[in-house]
Parts: sequence; structure tokens; C-alpha cells
Amino acid sequence: MAKNDTPWQTLDSKVMYQNPWMKVHEDKVLMPSGKEGIYGFIDSKPGVFVIALTGDGKIYIIESFRYPTQKWQWELPTGGIEKDTSPLESAKHELAEELGMTAEKWTHVNTFGPSSNGFMNDVQDVFVAEGLHRSEEGSSEEFEAIRAVKAVTIDEIMTMIKNGSLINGQSLAALMQFIAWRDY
Amino acid sequence: MAKNDTPWQTLDSKVMYQNPWMKVHEDKVLMPSGKEGIYGFIDSKPGVFVIALTGDGKIYIIESFRYPTQKWQWELPTGGIEKDTSPLESAKHELAEELGMTAEKWTHVNTFGPSSNGFMNDVQDVFVAEGLHRSEEGSSEEFEAIRAVKAVTIDEIMTMIKNGSLINGQSLAALMQFIAWRDY
Repeated sequence: MAKNDTPWQTLDSKVMYQNPWMKVHEDKVLMPSGKEGIYGFIDSKPGVFVIALTGDGKIYIIESFRYPTQKWQWELPTGGIEKDTSPLESAKHELAEELGMTAEKWTHVNTFGPSSNGFMNDVQDVFVAEGLHRSEEGSSEEFEAIRAVKAVTIDEIMTMIKNGSLINGQSLAALMQFIAWRDY
Repeated sequence: MAKNDTPWQTLDSKVMYQNPWMKVHEDKVLMPSGKEGIYGFIDSKPGVFVIALTGDGKIYIIESFRYPTQKWQWELPTGGIEKDTSPLESAKHELAEELGMTAEKWTHVNTFGPSSNGFMNDVQDVFVAEGLHRSEEGSSEEFEAIRAVKAVTIDEIMTMIKNGSLINGQSLAALMQFIAWRDY
């Protein structure tokens, strides 16, 4: 195979750390320069992001506390895809759990990934949920801390993006895919 | 402090793996539910993304091979910020290295992060570079494999996003911030 088709060669691969949500690999590699080195990255579950649209075109966002940054952030409803669960089933699960809602119509918008070019190999599916109904109850996971939920117009989201109130990369990526899907 | 202000409590923190580019932490925590558990995440360098704009409003994109996914992908010029280097200096460095260019005018668009809600705590600065000039030489890092570079209109980028040719989360996030900054 031509050098440009596989610019890195894997000489050896080891799992250096794992927990139920991630594996950290360290591979012994030949780098594009031909020099020997190592490459570490995370292997994690795929995930879903949900754009839950109200009848008047508003999008639900959630203020959630994230452990790695130790910060509250505004984000789209999201979660990992459990084994033997489809992306769509996972999206329905997150809508029920985080917003306490069901939807009449689901549309697959796109798939993005990796979330980090250098460190991850994940894949995230983005869905639009329309025809929203409040379900009996929202149940919160033990891993989750949500302190606010609101529905905002796309103009309000653009303002939040511009003023730095919505900055997490994955929600920005999902919104970019939504806008490209809707407008183009 | 009220429970909602710090929904996770850190009981202990350990570095389980590290290399020159990342540290993997595993913390012993009290989860939002109050139950004891662990949380693993990556601590990595901050980074920059560059929107290099031509005189007629095209944006340069790069086709780069990424080791974690083992795939070629279209992305914006990007790189990590080295110690004792400012985000702007890093952006200038990446423009020179990946495109072989300098720019007359630099504008800080925004900062996004984390790149992955559950697994990372990184911060990425997005810059627009205008008044581009080809410099003497582009020098490629030993970690980098680039096989194509092109300048495309924002409409072409929207088509690439829609048809799944540009799917990496960080470039999508940077483009979302650029569009919000430019249009709103």
C-alpha cells in the first residue's frame, strides 16, 4: 500500500487503562516521518444528540454539570449508546430521561465524529425529535446533574454561541449539522 | 455549598496513565445520586483552530489522517498549544506549518470546549486569518500526514457537512462558532 494511504503503522497495541465507559490504548507506532513512537487514545461508546423541536421551532437545551471540567454548561440532550441498543432507541431514552418527553416524529440528521481529532475515535448520531409530548415522568440517572431546561429559538442559540454561553464542542457540532441539514 | 452547585464530590484523584500529550485521571467520587463511584477522564493540552479566509471568502480545509479513527478526514488547520506559547502564536504556527502561509490580520472568534462532554476538559481557541500570503515553505511535523488542501466556499462546506464529507466534531464546532460570529 502506498505510504500516503497508511501514514502511521501500528507495531503493537496495549490497553493501559479501562473502566466501564472507556479504554485507553497506547500503541507502538511508526509515525508519518518513519520514526518510532507511541500514540495514546481513548476508545469509548458511541453516543447520540437530540434536537428536540417545539411546534414553533424552538430547541430544548439543558444546563448540566460536567465532571471533567467541573462546570455547568448548556448542552443538547445527549447520552451514550448502550450495548444492543440502536442509536434511535438511545435518542428516545435520552429525550424521556432528560426532558421527560416523547416525540411523534424522529429524523436522523447526521453522524459526527471523532469528538476530538487527536484523542478519540467516537461516533455520535444526531436526531431531530418533533411532535413533543410530556410523558409521565423524567427519571434522572445517578450520573446526571441537570439544574435547568429551556426551549430557545435558533436566533437565541446563535446569540448564546456568540457570547460564549454555549461552548461545548459536541453540541456545537450537532447544531452545525442541524443547520446544514435544515438550510441547505 | 448547596447540593446543586457541586453535584459531584471528589474523594480521591489518581493519574492512571500519562504520555507527553495526555493524562488519564480516575477520581473516586460521590455521584449526583450520593452513591460512591469512579470517574475517568483525559486531561490534555488546549488547542487552536484556524479559519483561513481567502480574499473571495473561501475557507481552507485539509485532508489529514487521524490515528485514533484510522481514517482520512477533512478538517480545519489545527494543533495543540505548546507550553509558554499563546493561542495566537500557536494559530500562526499551524497556518505556516499546515498551509505554508502567513496572514496580515488575525481575529479571535471564540473559545470552545470541552471537545467531549463526558471524557475531556480541553479548551480550543478559534481564529480567523485574513490577508493570506504563501510563505517560503510549509514544514510538516513528524506526527502529521496531510494529503490534500483546498479552499472552498461556505456553501461548499455546508454541502460537505450535509453529505458527511466533513464530520469531525471539532471542525464542526469551530465552523458553528465562525458562522454565529459572522452572521449574528
